[in-house]
Amino acid sequence: MLNPSSDNPRRLPSAEQYIQGVLSGDRALLGRAITLIESEATQHRELAQTVLRGLIPHSGNSLRIGITGVPGVGKSTLIEALGMQLCEQGLHVAVLAVDPSSSQTHGSILGDKTRMARLSHAPNAFIRPSPTGGTLGGVTRKTRESIIVCEAAGYTIVLVETVGVGQSETAVKSMTDCFVLLALAGAGDELQAIKKGIVELADLIVITKADGDNREHALAAAAEYSRALRYLAHNSQWPTRVQTCSTQTGIGLPELWETIEQFHQIGQTQGWFDSRRKEQTREWLHTLIQSELERRFYQDVAIASQLPLIEQAVLDGNMTVVEAATRLLDSISK
Amino acid sequence: MLNPSSDNPRRLPSAEQYIQGVLSGDRALLGRAITLIESEATQHRELAQTVLRGLIPHSGNSLRIGITGVPGVGKSTLIEALGMQLCEQGLHVAVLAVDPSSSQTHGSILGDKTRMARLSHAPNAFIRPSPTGGTLGGVTRKTRESIIVCEAAGYTIVLVETVGVGQSETAVKSMTDCFVLLALAGAGDELQAIKKGIVELADLIVITKADGDNREHALAAAAEYSRALRYLAHNSQWPTRVQTCSTQTGIGLPELWETIEQFHQIGQTQGWFDSRRKEQTREWLHTLIQSELERRFYQDVAIASQLPLIEQAVLDGNMTVVEAATRLLDSISK
Repeated sequence: MLNPSSDNPRRLPSAEQYIQGVLSGDRALLGRAITLIESEATQHRELAQTVLRGLIPHSGNSLRIGITGVPGVGKSTLIEALGMQLCEQGLHVAVLAVDPSSSQTHGSILGDKTRMARLSHAPNAFIRPSPTGGTLGGVTRKTRESIIVCEAAGYTIVLVETVGVGQSETAVKSMTDCFVLLALAGAGDELQAIKKGIVELADLIVITKADGDNREHALAAAAEYSRALRYLAHNSQWPTRVQTCSTQTGIGLPELWETIEQFHQIGQTQGWFDSRRKEQTREWLHTLIQSELERRFYQDVAIASQLPLIEQAVLDGNMTVVEAATRLLDSISK
Repeated sequence: MLNPSSDNPRRLPSAEQYIQGVLSGDRALLGRAITLIESEATQHRELAQTVLRGLIPHSGNSLRIGITGVPGVGKSTLIEALGMQLCEQGLHVAVLAVDPSSSQTHGSILGDKTRMARLSHAPNAFIRPSPTGGTLGGVTRKTRESIIVCEAAGYTIVLVETVGVGQSETAVKSMTDCFVLLALAGAGDELQAIKKGIVELADLIVITKADGDNREHALAAAAEYSRALRYLAHNSQWPTRVQTCSTQTGIGLPELWETIEQFHQIGQTQGWFDSRRKEQTREWLHTLIQSELERRFYQDVAIASQLPLIEQAVLDGNMTVVEAATRLLDSISK
């Protein structure tokens, strides 16, 4: 775990210094502000929330794009190509990640900046690996807050990468405006993603590596996804699109960005872009409350000591479920 | 709301009288025991749980079948035909319902026993309308407990009917062993059910009214569902089957029952029938705890009075989500 003090062993910046540094676009202070937010230490929490409160009024002015896909689909290659294209247009691009499997030493995504060597040296880009350690809920909270910090620092495109680990796609969907699923042609990958329910989350499905001998397969996969979409729940405001692209030839990349811009424009014109964000914030609050209520309950010493016995009594038919729940809820000790 | 005392204005039976009555197959006491369980009155709760605790050791020996489908698909006609067929084989059949939309006067399903006129007069059958009033959670709890009571009374087939209202299918899936989706041919019904995620819950899909001119359409619909299943999450222990049937000609009805029996036998042989039930019970306990934690939180006077203001402060950018959640959680008054 990084320690916010470690960048400067003498003392932490004040809340005002963090805020002014981030707002002025100071990349070092931006990085340190995110480190502060990611800190699990109790003494950093209040400062982190004060900094965030100061930054929130300057946040929100970005397009938040979630990007997912199985390992090997070419997520970092595509993010780098798309990021470079946007930087060349003068846009400021931040790349964050949600990867609850990432350990202290190396996560499975974005752990190594050399994977996006060009983009990491672009003056308009800011790349941050996934916060390390902790639960999915913890990683999600940190990434949500990092989005706010990056926006306050002037980044108008925020790309949030995730890999299909458990519920991380749902988490990224809940913090981004536009959710992009990258997929490979062949190898039954189509059905895998569809069965895992990820396709339903996507605003845009992009078949990658659509070049050379693979081009035909990619087009076939795109057709297969389009057929599958007929059977899946869809967002009536924005029916899911399916496209192909190749980072090698560059074919399909401008069209990919065009679709995302269309999504943004239509969403703003029709009002659902803003209403979705409000709903995401409201849901975040209630999800946080719910998980904290459950955490407190199951960590309660009286509950933890009784739960296995009571659960067994229910399974053995010696107690009703309602009696068991009532007995547990009545014995909360704190 | 029915009152358990209303059957006998003088006094309620004792727990022991309820238990012995149910175990001896006394239909009047079975009905009154369910009325007791359905009562929302605080003074009935403890007695209801005592009765249930006495019945649980005698429960479990049934096949619990969930049946869903849009209005007009022929649920009650099929349940009656299937129920009569089973009664004629000497089996004891109970029919319950989950319909959170049902009001005190009439629900949309099973509110009127005349809908199953023959079955309601069969000596081996017991039909109970959906509990009236209350939340889906409340209706679900009551139906789960009624299943236990019916099993203790010797009913070895329990059919639980539901109509596609919100999450009621998920609720019925979580309390039954085998979940059957009835569907009509044509009119885009296939895609509707698939998009609503109900097909994924089904162990068996039955296209009804497969007779006369409609037979060809029914077979086409069955083929469409089979194609769609390729794209949907499935249970590897029991891949979803698709069949057709007609209650008018009787064609397909014996095959429908054959499939359900196969499901039962394979599940018992392979062990997943029992492990699923245990998992359902465990999940029920934790779902009950979770909903009670949330209920207590949101009904807390301090929370209820502060929540709208704090939510607005978050949406206005004057408070972080973490600060809002912390402030609310710290101000729980009871």
